[in-house]
Amino acid sequence: MSAIRFEPSSSLKPKPDESNLEFGKTFTDHMFLLDYTEGKGWHDPRIVPYGPLTLDPAAMVFHYGQAIFEGLKAFRSKDNKILLFRPDKNAQRMNVSNDRLSIPEMDEEAFVEYVKALINVDRDWVPSAEGTSLYIRPFIMAVEPCLGVRASKQYVFAIIMSPVGAYYKEGIHPVKISVESHYVRAVRGGTGFAKTAGNYSSGIKAQEEAKHGGFAQVLWLDGKEHAYIEEVGSMNIFFKIDGEVVTPELNGSILAGVTRDSVIRLLNDWGIPFSERRISIQEIYEASQQGKLEEAFGTGTAAVISPVGELHWLEHTMKINEGRTGEISQKIYDTITGIQNGKLEDSYGWNVLVHEDVKV
Amino acid sequence: MSAIRFEPSSSLKPKPDESNLEFGKTFTDHMFLLDYTEGKGWHDPRIVPYGPLTLDPAAMVFHYGQAIFEGLKAFRSKDNKILLFRPDKNAQRMNVSNDRLSIPEMDEEAFVEYVKALINVDRDWVPSAEGTSLYIRPFIMAVEPCLGVRASKQYVFAIIMSPVGAYYKEGIHPVKISVESHYVRAVRGGTGFAKTAGNYSSGIKAQEEAKHGGFAQVLWLDGKEHAYIEEVGSMNIFFKIDGEVVTPELNGSILAGVTRDSVIRLLNDWGIPFSERRISIQEIYEASQQGKLEEAFGTGTAAVISPVGELHWLEHTMKINEGRTGEISQKIYDTITGIQNGKLEDSYGWNVLVHEDVKV
Ligand SMILES: Cc1ncc(COP(=O)(O)O)c(C=O)c1O
Ligand SMILES: Cc1ncc(COP(=O)(O)O)c(C=O)c1O
Repeated sequence: MSAIRFEPSSSLKPKPDESNLEFGKTFTDHMFLLDYTEGKGWHDPRIVPYGPLTLDPAAMVFHYGQAIFEGLKAFRSKDNKILLFRPDKNAQRMNVSNDRLSIPEMDEEAFVEYVKALINVDRDWVPSAEGTSLYIRPFIMAVEPCLGVRASKQYVFAIIMSPVGAYYKEGIHPVKISVESHYVRAVRGGTGFAKTAGNYSSGIKAQEEAKHGGFAQVLWLDGKEHAYIEEVGSMNIFFKIDGEVVTPELNGSILAGVTRDSVIRLLNDWGIPFSERRISIQEIYEASQQGKLEEAFGTGTAAVISPVGELHWLEHTMKINEGRTGEISQKIYDTITGIQNGKLEDSYGWNVLVHEDVKV
Repeated sequence: MSAIRFEPSSSLKPKPDESNLEFGKTFTDHMFLLDYTEGKGWHDPRIVPYGPLTLDPAAMVFHYGQAIFEGLKAFRSKDNKILLFRPDKNAQRMNVSNDRLSIPEMDEEAFVEYVKALINVDRDWVPSAEGTSLYIRPFIMAVEPCLGVRASKQYVFAIIMSPVGAYYKEGIHPVKISVESHYVRAVRGGTGFAKTAGNYSSGIKAQEEAKHGGFAQVLWLDGKEHAYIEEVGSMNIFFKIDGEVVTPELNGSILAGVTRDSVIRLLNDWGIPFSERRISIQEIYEASQQGKLEEAFGTGTAAVISPVGELHWLEHTMKINEGRTGEISQKIYDTITGIQNGKLEDSYGWNVLVHEDVKV
């Protein structure tokens, strides 16, 4: 890994009000950039003032969407340490995404070092209020100016960071979710297991229609039979049915969430019956009818746990746990957020400390 | 439609060698830009020197791929007129794509006027050598700097243009195509019928593997049953089986090609038996076994017609018309290219003349 060049910003921005942070709107003083050119590989890692990117209008990302991203968070502990949650998992997943879109692989250790270096430079931006964090967005885009439909020969890898507020301002609470019956997010053989830019644009319309109907999110069904549960907007999904927790298996069309993985570790450690398998919406409906649908919750970096209080499917409304947060949902939420902000012991070694002496 | 502002380039570039044009690598002196802001609508149409775009690193297009595009061509006729092929169809399709990705609709007549105005400014860039043309790339991207996953509130519509060489340097000739048996391009309920950026990035890997195996392109099968024929990389596909020409119906997962539409018009006018319907790869294989697979050809703006000489599916190789260009393929090619370059009468009213007096 070559040394990171550092060009400090000459004017630092005022920090935003921590009690009033909108997601992904305010960015820190610096950003990280790294270039890729065919023949030369990834090169010129640098931390520079946050500012516009200049791209040829023929840059491939604009035309063919060859772009992937990651999302992770850093937290400020009570004793003022900065803790990064499982960045190695994001590094791995980024390479899964890269491979799917024929983007050159990145060194996973370098990825983590770059993230740490940028956080260190802007460490004053990691907020400290309860529930707040620094959201970190690494992304890669194809920048070769060429209209041929093929893999680009030039890329930019960038990291930008945004302080984010508490997801739940008034404590964790359940949401209403609608099972999507028309649109499809992904299908096996497609890109659903990768974090590609295109996967998100295709979900916007369904999401808008759901919002319009009073729902927080849509629950996607599989693209083949439109019968099996996949995931929610930006979350994986878990159900507790008759004492057993289940989540859809990683079948090639859903994203392998880092939170999903963490939740599974906890469930296994706690000895809670658990399985990853194919789950039909019909099965969920029947469990609900029989009074056996005990909990449902989404998992993702943004909210950690998002309990589902009501699930709508065709003409059916399934009320879950009387619209209250379930016991397991709450316990997982408390445990993961407790580890993230340093209040609970990190017995899994999930936190990565961002030292102050990172060299840039 | 508000007047187009014109900022001429102060230094015009030398024109490239017409006998040696690489697709989508050289761009004309100017580009067209138009902005969209929520509340204000599309505004500030302008023709400015071709040059870099400056975007915030949080611009949504980089993260969530909310971007669509079009592709069409202008031709220089022997009597030096500039003819644009069916731009109204691209305008319509752009709005289909916009709708699918929750991008605000554009005025279709304005779209055509913008294309004409830009061509007029750079009309010296329309090449005249046999088979050459000016490729026109209108595209829209989400530019609001925000990491929330939702429709952007700001967009840029741009048009860039590139002189392109003859697709067939040594005359029209058939290619080898491989039927894709693992990857999927699109599924019903997804974005396959729209020209979204993300649809193309997801096809790159399959395309690379096909190239590696010695094939020009892949033929996509449907995402649901992996049994029915959809389309080729950037082309729709037609087969002639036992005297009848068939093409997959527009089922929600394939693109409605402008060339496809033109071909259908010709076939009907010529009284050639034709149908749009579901076509399984099994049916094609059986027709081939029985000696009834008489022709196969792709249709698209780039090549107009691309005859298929060999089709590979699993362990089967289907040789079509002994690897030679079929009679109908050739006749369609000659007719459409003849209309496009003004050598044949344009009895369908497909050509739009780009007058010299377009106001900018
Ligand atoms: C489609 C999708 N599924 C699931 C997740 C949850 O993944 P993670 O737990 O890594 O945030 C996300 C968010 O990253 C997502 O975008
Ligand atoms: C996926 C796809 N299918 C078909 C086509 C053919 O469409 P057209 O004839 O309008 O060029 C294209 C090219 O635009 C394409 O990208």
